[in-house]
Amino acid sequence: MGLIVQKYGGSSVADTDRVKRVAERIVRRKRAGNQIVAVVSALGDTTDELIELAKKITDDPPKREYDMLISTGEQVSVSLLAMAINELGEDVISLTGSQIGIITNDLHAKAKILKVNPERLEQELTQDKIVIVAGFQGVTFDNEITTLGRGGSDTTGVAVATALGADLCEIYTDVDGVYTADPRVVKSACKLNEVSYEEMLEFASLGAEVLHPRSVEIAKEYGIEMVVKSSFYCCPGTYIKEVGELEKDIVVTGVTCNGDTVKLSLIGVPDEPGIASRIFTGLAEDGINVDMIIQNVDYDGLNDITFTIDKEDLDHAKINLKGLQGELGYTELIYDTEVTKVSIVGAGMVTNPGVAAKMFEALADEDINIDLISTSEIKVSCLINEERADQAVKVIHDKFNLERLCDSNV
Amino acid sequence: MGLIVQKYGGSSVADTDRVKRVAERIVRRKRAGNQIVAVVSALGDTTDELIELAKKITDDPPKREYDMLISTGEQVSVSLLAMAINELGEDVISLTGSQIGIITNDLHAKAKILKVNPERLEQELTQDKIVIVAGFQGVTFDNEITTLGRGGSDTTGVAVATALGADLCEIYTDVDGVYTADPRVVKSACKLNEVSYEEMLEFASLGAEVLHPRSVEIAKEYGIEMVVKSSFYCCPGTYIKEVGELEKDIVVTGVTCNGDTVKLSLIGVPDEPGIASRIFTGLAEDGINVDMIIQNVDYDGLNDITFTIDKEDLDHAKINLKGLQGELGYTELIYDTEVTKVSIVGAGMVTNPGVAAKMFEALADEDINIDLISTSEIKVSCLINEERADQAVKVIHDKFNLERLCDSNV
Repeated sequence: MGLIVQKYGGSSVADTDRVKRVAERIVRRKRAGNQIVAVVSALGDTTDELIELAKKITDDPPKREYDMLISTGEQVSVSLLAMAINELGEDVISLTGSQIGIITNDLHAKAKILKVNPERLEQELTQDKIVIVAGFQGVTFDNEITTLGRGGSDTTGVAVATALGADLCEIYTDVDGVYTADPRVVKSACKLNEVSYEEMLEFASLGAEVLHPRSVEIAKEYGIEMVVKSSFYCCPGTYIKEVGELEKDIVVTGVTCNGDTVKLSLIGVPDEPGIASRIFTGLAEDGINVDMIIQNVDYDGLNDITFTIDKEDLDHAKINLKGLQGELGYTELIYDTEVTKVSIVGAGMVTNPGVAAKMFEALADEDINIDLISTSEIKVSCLINEERADQAVKVIHDKFNLERLCDSNV
Repeated sequence: MGLIVQKYGGSSVADTDRVKRVAERIVRRKRAGNQIVAVVSALGDTTDELIELAKKITDDPPKREYDMLISTGEQVSVSLLAMAINELGEDVISLTGSQIGIITNDLHAKAKILKVNPERLEQELTQDKIVIVAGFQGVTFDNEITTLGRGGSDTTGVAVATALGADLCEIYTDVDGVYTADPRVVKSACKLNEVSYEEMLEFASLGAEVLHPRSVEIAKEYGIEMVVKSSFYCCPGTYIKEVGELEKDIVVTGVTCNGDTVKLSLIGVPDEPGIASRIFTGLAEDGINVDMIIQNVDYDGLNDITFTIDKEDLDHAKINLKGLQGELGYTELIYDTEVTKVSIVGAGMVTNPGVAAKMFEALADEDINIDLISTSEIKVSCLINEERADQAVKVIHDKFNLERLCDSNV
């Protein structure tokens, strides 16, 4: 019994039959005595189809018009889901981001939610209606339609849960939870019953595509309990919540990898103060996220600066850095797209020395060369050749004996 | 030079290539020194496809959700057109009915425009932008999305032109103007250079599908000059405007027919005061428009009441009237769907007696039986068997010698 915010991804509503099944699930939960708000993505491949349509007009659409276009996908899915729920005899209303007042900044195509007005939502809930919310979209203070970028519906779900003070935010997806490793790669991988916000944040950032990192950030900040579960099976899923100190004795919770990464090196950068700042400020101004960075002194007072970015940002980054060549005075820009970042995550790592060394040892045992390393309190990441990625994940999973976590799941 | 509101129907933007052509046309007019606001329908069959999608969920969707769904069609077309215009190097912005403030009543799926807020439109025009407006849709005072029903984009065009005090409202469609008769039926039919608002209103109401009657009503009320022209050819089209007295010497301007009509008769209705009122109030409350009505005293104080309605309203009307049978005490409800209404229209009719008689004579000469007659100051309509419709249009066109109007078009 409580106020539950559910989020259904595109695969959960891929066609009208699946829409009907989601409607049945929602109505069951409602009739069990809960208040339900469901956040919905666009039907299946709708968003990609709309993007294809735009490409027939131009390769470079104005982002404001791009958002006008692709935000229609969620408006279609919410109205269809509302029709299906109405057909089952429950009072229901669908709402767009604009109608609710999901206020975002004006960074079209990757806007950030600033706030969610609870008034309209609460008004409909008070009338005992099921409320269906268009995910992935918002509106600026000037009433311009925005979208949140890939994975944005997760963020909508958590932001709506936060605005309403919901008891739980359920994320329905095509996997049945968070695993110690990708089960397609590691046969002995285990589904985790629960992970901490911090661990989930690292998992999400490091390539586990279960949840969008931004949604976990918000859930952590406002203490919203989340659960990731399958929309096709009735498994209990994985809870994401504040985990007590005692439970942090699991040093490593999982191993994950991300191949959407590319390594760039600027060769022969003059060793002067402010150079690195100039490089990375320039990239940030273009909205390019830089991940791992190392700098090593070369010869004659020249440095090599190496860093990784998302593959999709490579073209932009090359243009950006070529433009700075005169100012920075580097001799060469080289890049390598055939790399993968393999990471281990675990809240207990911070109090357990030697975890990183154990990971390096696992890789060394298999002659897997490490290109770059970065660490945080709860994760260690190594950049390696992408051809060795699956093998690396397997040996690390073995090294930390992660299959033992399966028992704790039973 | 001036402020021009253009309206493009679904066939004008049936695919992305046509969208590009419309963009070119708009940009040409802009560069000739005009301010342009373009109202656009959904791409080709999009609206029908969305309706099909809804039908997979339910046969009877809540009208509010139906509007949420189908209003996305225009949001797609306006954003694509804006992208195409941007690609040609002009400043442009697309706006939904909600963003503009096209305020309607809350009759979902056939809402009426109450007002159009000019502020946002004027603000964009002041910044020298081409403004693309989603046709067919509006928003209630409560920010609920509504649609205007079939032909609604014409109404949006004229309503926007009115709000802005535009110099001209151009309606682009797949025909090149208004004809003295359907050219597919009458080979000698002529395109009219201009017609009065009143004539166009009758033409539109009587089956010529060139313009939605509601749009002509608004244009007439606010004195907005309209022109109907082809979006594929460069013909001058037909102007719809206030026509001076002297020009009313053309008694009959055209002949038109409408087969989307059905004749209903209530047999044996008691001849009591208030009975007719009860019947037609009941139908009006169901949103069913009644057109021609006749009542004739039968026998024993019982009447037969016969009237016509749109074919699409037949099922609703039958349910409505069956429900009243106990109260009204009629003995039988019969209907005939194989009828067509043939009409002549002309502003000069009001000052020329004998026009109706001439029409009846033309039909009698061909042994075409007249079922019902209705007249107004500028039109005469006869209900006949639908099999004779084409022949009736031809003989009436001949009788009034309408091909002579072709000369005046040269």
